Amino acid sequence: MAKKAVILFSGGLDSTTCLAIAKAEGFDCYALSINYGQKHSIELENAKRIAKTMDVVEHKIISLNLSELGGSSLTSGDINIPDYKGDKAIPTTYVPARNTVFLSIALGWAEVLNSFDIYIGANDVDYSGYPDCRPVYIQAFENLAKLATKAGVEGKNFHIHAPLLRLSKSEIIKVGMKQGIDYKMTVSCYRANSKGEACGQCDSCVYRIKGFNEAGLSDPTLYM
Amino acid sequence: MAKKAVILFSGGLDSTTCLAIAKAEGFDCYALSINYGQKHSIELENAKRIAKTMDVVEHKIISLNLSELGGSSLTSGDINIPDYKGDKAIPTTYVPARNTVFLSIALGWAEVLNSFDIYIGANDVDYSGYPDCRPVYIQAFENLAKLATKAGVEGKNFHIHAPLLRLSKSEIIKVGMKQGIDYKMTVSCYRANSKGEACGQCDSCVYRIKGFNEAGLSDPTLYM
Repeated sequence: MAKKAVILFSGGLDSTTCLAIAKAEGFDCYALSINYGQKHSIELENAKRIAKTMDVVEHKIISLNLSELGGSSLTSGDINIPDYKGDKAIPTTYVPARNTVFLSIALGWAEVLNSFDIYIGANDVDYSGYPDCRPVYIQAFENLAKLATKAGVEGKNFHIHAPLLRLSKSEIIKVGMKQGIDYKMTVSCYRANSKGEACGQCDSCVYRIKGFNEAGLSDPTLYM
Repeated sequence: MAKKAVILFSGGLDSTTCLAIAKAEGFDCYALSINYGQKHSIELENAKRIAKTMDVVEHKIISLNLSELGGSSLTSGDINIPDYKGDKAIPTTYVPARNTVFLSIALGWAEVLNSFDIYIGANDVDYSGYPDCRPVYIQAFENLAKLATKAGVEGKNFHIHAPLLRLSKSEIIKVGMKQGIDYKMTVSCYRANSKGEACGQCDSCVYRIKGFNEAGLSDPTLYM
């Protein structure tokens, strides 16, 4: 029996690639999506379809309405999602503590499954400067996971896999193409409409477009 | 204007004492309860009533159904909540990664509020050996909080206050009595019924009963 891994899986380009990598590395994959009040919750419909094509053992969607906390243009009706600016500032699409919340839920599920491998598609190259996508953060969560759990106390080590951490977007796309991913099925756009079509202007779209360009591939994304 | 603190607040004996301490320490208090699929969700009704008597600025109840992950007698219909056994084993009431999930949500809210103080009623003395109640865990989460957040990157430090960490249950009760807490309003029992009445047999009840005994106080708890 293969080892189990929990994969944080939004249905976007990065996490779909991450899922394909976990599969290629021989894990039985348990995909975890979070319905957190994101405006582009259409991504979850795509996540469901992709999970089916990728033979995950189970795909769980957990609801936790982070929009009740406010403070992010990705969840709050009061703040518009900005176009890509290209400066160094962390944009308003930052969701406070999002990856910590997501990894915590993944950790809980992993412990229940007797799994010690968690995959997250965090990227520290072509990204918006989110603090919880940095290697130092991923390492700190891995340390915490051991201290936080019964399994950790019993001597087990959790491994937080972030295989995309140091790849450019074009490198990520090339890895995924080798694994046979149909990126047309993935939704990255923060403003994706109910058909999953992308705006082409937000941070997430701009990094994605740049990735296909630099990879010398035609962009399969459906635009509005 | 006083500084703000986020207090993880279940409506139980420990977190109510923790809220009273945060208030006494001069913070404007933002109480956070989680409806996580706990069988004793009646505690949240008590939490609402207590929050009103304690003049919190806001009391937020966030839903996140951890029973979907299973693995704990506190959330899963498949596992009965055990009576107190008194051995060293971590009981089935352990909820995998619970405090990490709760602290993560508290961290998100704190960052939105521009608050850098989070209170948790974790206790490392009269407790069930949960790994995420130990000082080493609390410290690791504090380290993570700085790395996880925009505020942390900008130089702010989050402080995870766990004022009950090294107190016995009787010491906690004495602290709370000085702050005028009416412990009759609090629910600790894992099997609390719809009236908030306690079983007297579960771990949580046994530690509470022991606390009132050792403090030389009559136990105000309502039993079934």
